[in-house]
Formats: sequence, C-alpha cells, structure tokens
Amino acid sequence: MSILVVGSVAYDSVATPAGSVDRALGGSATYFSVAASFFTPVWLVACVGRDFRPEDRYFLESRGIDLEGLQTFEGETFSWKGRYGSNLDEAETLETRLNVFADFRPELPQRFRAAEYVFLANIDPALQRSVLSQVRRPRLVAADTMNYWIERRFEEILQTLRQVHILIINETEARELSRELSLIKAAEKIMQWGPRGIVIKRGGAGALLFTRGKTELEVFGLPAFPLEQVVDPTGAGDTFAGGFMGYLAGVGRIDEPTLRQAVVFGSVMASFNVESFSLDRLRTLTFPEITERFRRFHRLSYFDPLPETLSEAGRMDLP
Amino acid sequence: MSILVVGSVAYDSVATPAGSVDRALGGSATYFSVAASFFTPVWLVACVGRDFRPEDRYFLESRGIDLEGLQTFEGETFSWKGRYGSNLDEAETLETRLNVFADFRPELPQRFRAAEYVFLANIDPALQRSVLSQVRRPRLVAADTMNYWIERRFEEILQTLRQVHILIINETEARELSRELSLIKAAEKIMQWGPRGIVIKRGGAGALLFTRGKTELEVFGLPAFPLEQVVDPTGAGDTFAGGFMGYLAGVGRIDEPTLRQAVVFGSVMASFNVESFSLDRLRTLTFPEITERFRRFHRLSYFDPLPETLSEAGRMDLP
Repeated sequence: MSILVVGSVAYDSVATPAGSVDRALGGSATYFSVAASFFTPVWLVACVGRDFRPEDRYFLESRGIDLEGLQTFEGETFSWKGRYGSNLDEAETLETRLNVFADFRPELPQRFRAAEYVFLANIDPALQRSVLSQVRRPRLVAADTMNYWIERRFEEILQTLRQVHILIINETEARELSRELSLIKAAEKIMQWGPRGIVIKRGGAGALLFTRGKTELEVFGLPAFPLEQVVDPTGAGDTFAGGFMGYLAGVGRIDEPTLRQAVVFGSVMASFNVESFSLDRLRTLTFPEITERFRRFHRLSYFDPLPETLSEAGRMDLP
Repeated sequence: MSILVVGSVAYDSVATPAGSVDRALGGSATYFSVAASFFTPVWLVACVGRDFRPEDRYFLESRGIDLEGLQTFEGETFSWKGRYGSNLDEAETLETRLNVFADFRPELPQRFRAAEYVFLANIDPALQRSVLSQVRRPRLVAADTMNYWIERRFEEILQTLRQVHILIINETEARELSRELSLIKAAEKIMQWGPRGIVIKRGGAGALLFTRGKTELEVFGLPAFPLEQVVDPTGAGDTFAGGFMGYLAGVGRIDEPTLRQAVVFGSVMASFNVESFSLDRLRTLTFPEITERFRRFHRLSYFDPLPETLSEAGRMDLP
C-alpha cells in the first residue's frame, strides 16, 4: 500500500563534530519519504520555493516518490541551520527560515485522498488535522510533533491525537507532552488521549514501543545499533518513521509482532542515515543492506530464554 | 561455585527526588554480595569500623554471605553522602569519608584463596592486583573501576586489566578510559589491553556486552527495564555486577550465550535495586521474582526474525 506523508522539504546547513554541509537536501517529509520508499510507494505532500534544485526533485522521483502533491510557490524553500556538539542527541538551532512553508495549506490531489497509510510529520497540529480530514478512510495514521507545538498548541495536539493511531516522538517530547518523568507513565497518559500505540525514540539509547496488551501495557525495547561514528543525526527521527511506516504499509499488517519488526526497520533506516550528512547514505543504500542490518539487530538483541528446569527455590542448580 | 568479592562496605546518606536516607547500608562489595547471593555463595573481603551495626552484619549473614574476610578496625566505617537531581544517571558527591577504608590492605583468609570466580569492585587498582595475587587459580576475574582512578592511576589500571577477563564499567568511564567517543571503539581498545569481554552499563539506556567473536566483535545490547519510578540509583552498577557474576558462578559456564543471559540477570537485579533506597528491595526479593523479571526482559526484547522468503530485490512483497 502507498503511504501519504505531509511535512517539510527543506535545505539544511548543519555542522557536527565530523564536519559540515551547506544547503543540503533535508526536511521531515523528505527523510520520511526516502526511507519509506525502500518498502512501499510514497505520496509526498509538501511545498518548496523557486530555488528548489532540479537534481533534488530528480532524486526524489528516482526513488519512486510521487511528487504530484509537492507544490512550488514564489519565494524560497524552508531552510534550517543548526549544529551539534559532542552530545549528538540534541541540535542547537542557529537559524530557521520558514519561507514558503509559512503559508503552507496542504491540499491533497484527488488520488491521494484514497491513502490508507498516513504519516503526519512535525507540522502545526491544526494542519495535521486538515490533511486527515481530506483522507477518506485511513487505515493507519501515525504522527510526530515537537516541543515548539507542545508549548504553543497543546490543546490542538490533543485534538489531533484523537485521530492518530500511533504517535512517534522522542523521549524529551514524550516527557514534555505528558508531564511525566517515567516513560511508562508518559505512554499510559498519552494513550488515554487517543493513540493505540506510542513509539518513543531515544537516540543513542534506542527505541521503545508501547501498545495496549490484553491485560496490561505491552512494551518492546530495542537498543540503538552501535556505530563506529555518528556523522550527522539530522533526520534520524523522520528516517525512523519512514522505515517504521514503510514496512507496515509494505507488509499490510499492523499486529503487535509486526509493529515490533517495524520498530527494528525504523532503527535500521535511522542507523544508516546518521552515518553520513543529509540523506547521502540513503542514496547508495540497497535493500539487501537493509535486511542484513535487520539480521544484525536480531543478533544484537537475542538471548536464550531460561531453561524450564531452573530451580525456583533459591540458588541456581543448573548443570 | 563461590564468588570472592573485594570492595567497600559503607554507610550512605542519599537524597533523590523521591526522598532521602541517612547512614543506610551501602558500599560496592555490599551491593555486589547481596545481589550475587541469590545465585551462589559469596565470600566478602572488606573492612568496617567499630560503628558497624550488628543488624547489618546479621543481614549479610542471613543472605549466606561468608564474612570471615570482613575485618573490623578501630575507627569509623567508610561513609558517603550524595544526591541525585532529576537526571538519575549521575550522583553529586557531597562528602566522602574513607575512615578505616583509607588503610585497607586486603588479606584473604586461607579458604578464600581457592576462589575460582573473583570480582574486584571499584578500589585502588594496585589493591585489586594485590588481591588477585593471593588467589591461586582464578577461573574468571571481573573488575570495575571509576573516573577517580582513571584520572590518577591510569598506568596501574592498565596493569590490572592484563589480569582481568571481563571489565564491567559505565558508559562515561568507558569513554574516559579509552578516550574514544564511540562505545564500539572504546570496547575494541580496552580489549587490546587484556580483557576478553567488556560490559558497558548505560543506566536508563540499558547495557552492552562486547566479546571477541570468531571473525569480528560480538555485541549484545539490552534495553533498561522500563520502570514506573526510580527511587534511588545508588548501587545499581554493583548490583548489576552481582547478578552478572552470580549467575555465571551459579551455572558454572562462561560461553557467550551464557554471558548474554548474565547481562540480563545483572539488569534484573539492578532494576529491582533502584526501586527502593539502599538495599531495601533486595531484602524482600525472592528468586521467583527474579526469574519472572528475566522472562519479562525476554518479552521486552523479543522480535520475530525476517521470513526467509523476503524479497531482496527492493520493495516488500510479503503476503
């Protein structure tokens, strides 16, 4: 199944301890689309300015991403400038220019209104709802948000969450949104507002998936893939979401075991993406590399269950 | 098999966002011994002052811990005072009084010299070696250290590491010791100095185990157990080491799959310990609760492998 994504397409200037790039292709919808495109067709809804480079459009098309919903306006493309210190989990924003993105009012092409899988990347929660209202019968809606909206549009977020099946946010945002320190309590509270599942992205600490089990909260935890070097964490969260949703739409199932695998695919895509600046690693990535890293995640996480014969009495008495 | 542990027995005064305790039983060897005692007999080597309370001695004895190596000196027991802010991964030390611990020169009782499993808790690396030199034929030696020694006794640590099979340290110490930011690079560097395995404790981010595989570094990653509340993280690292070493000595195997399970048991014990101040949770803990939490860790970490039929060509074509 195709996935509809709405979010930003941007030019990013980023400095990290590993180097820097100037006006490189970025934006939440871009990272999401490219990651998801490895698994399923993607319908992109976003806007750019007249400065949007033909080679960037060509790259997105080469990934089979449908650009009918990518509008071009007079003015410049959204641009972001930021830097990371040695704590690569947190960016310092140096400059944000919304440009054409400031007046973005997403209008879906007719074809896109049939989308069954929808990802609402981090934009104004009222806009997220306006997109949803144009989709006829979504089967799975996932959304992201950020501290900017939590601090300014809390009530709007609550309204949007009523229509969202899975919220995909980072650890700091989960705590800020729920006003709970414990991630379990945060997830329980947010799920009372609507979502049936929460994915909490933790950067170098991996990811957690919370869903409602038969009698209690069901939790899945995955460590981050240990890397020799993180070059640029920009877009890791949206790349994660792209792998997560792309896999779900690709297999067409959304049961709990499949959601767990989707968290792994999200982590796989994010772990590749942070190995280079911008989307550069995804440009050369192949599907066999993706499945190989999935298998490495399995080997990373696996441990033998306890033997049935283990004494429950006290000290161990195994052979 | 019995485990020999050398380290501190202390009285801790601790404040956390959840409350505070004054002169509660603590110390690296105490936490280690009590955690390990659920799995195997423990031989404790440490020292206390005349103020050491009979009820604390009785508690350790009630856990089957052999106290022949616990010396009592004129003076006061080592005491530590610290507090934690909302970042529970890092303590602020308010006061350290070494007291009788300042002149501690561990002398092993004859019986203890036959120990096969040895844990050198965080003490002067030269003392760690002096303990090892008294053990006849150790089968498995694990050690901890801390920033204090890394900054002051780096060369001594290197000498000790030559005789250590498994180093169990936290993330910050691993980076400080190796001068590498990447935990993979840190582990590879430290393993060149002697140890065949490294466990890196990451607090709320879980734990990593690095061992040397046939052709490349073997890595196991376990997320932290999500808790509703962390009351007091003091002793989590030593409780982890106690569960880890206790399980290994209890089953008498040290192959890689068993080491992975040992990391889980370490995490199980640490996750219980942080639920209360001091060792309070371990006082009421039962073995069935331990195995139950092991099983919960398994459910937390488990995900289905990829089906063999998965297309390697590009987009997903699963049923």
